[in-house]
Amino acid sequence: MSAGRPSGQLLALSTEQCFDLLATQQVGRVVFSDDHGPLALPVNFVVQDRTILVRTEPRNTLARHLSESATCAFEVDDIDPAHHTGWSVLVRGSASVVRHLSADPRARWPGPWAPGERHLLLRITPDELSGRRLVP
Amino acid sequence: MSAGRPSGQLLALSTEQCFDLLATQQVGRVVFSDDHGPLALPVNFVVQDRTILVRTEPRNTLARHLSESATCAFEVDDIDPAHHTGWSVLVRGSASVVRHLSADPRARWPGPWAPGERHLLLRITPDELSGRRLVP
Repeated sequence: MSAGRPSGQLLALSTEQCFDLLATQQVGRVVFSDDHGPLALPVNFVVQDRTILVRTEPRNTLARHLSESATCAFEVDDIDPAHHTGWSVLVRGSASVVRHLSADPRARWPGPWAPGERHLLLRITPDELSGRRLVP
Repeated sequence: MSAGRPSGQLLALSTEQCFDLLATQQVGRVVFSDDHGPLALPVNFVVQDRTILVRTEPRNTLARHLSESATCAFEVDDIDPAHHTGWSVLVRGSASVVRHLSADPRARWPGPWAPGERHLLLRITPDELSGRRLVP
């Protein structure tokens, strides 16, 4: 930790690489704004048909602010701090509510990790994906 | 991955616990808004005097949108997807620019991990911290 030389280089990832990497992870961060500004909350998720599926409680912060077509982002990364390597993907798009599990019988919804009545299902549809990889 | 029962419970963390956990990590995500909405970008960081120190390029997205006193957030987590355990901390506050390394000789600035002229130093000062731990 000093004012030294950088240890790696950053490479941009293609959209295909971003989708491939998203699918390797189970946890990402929903990024949105409430009355106090932007915030990010980690959630478990799955990818289906190039959308992000998230499950939450109907009355929590996430649900209240991600009503139909709310602008949001979703960030996923996997970074090795010991070797200064890794990657990150940023999905920017909009969220919509899928009101019932049965509304999309094909969906492989994420199981709930935390307690509460997590029967609100959110789908984040990407408008734009970007990603970068830090290599040695 | 199914509509099953939750596997754990969520506990709120105290401010002291949040600061202690922040200091255990090297990478977090700066959360802010640009013209297209909210976004999050991972960065390496250090904690000093209860503020978050980040180093970036003067002309990149982060620097352009985190001018003096810009409202932002900083998210750090450590989640074990295999055991559905972990924690997350959300810092909400404002960013300010420290223009020169020498402006605060006490500061232990984070070293650059990525290339580029990363001589812009940002300090995120928390207004509010919140955290939660997911336990089995």
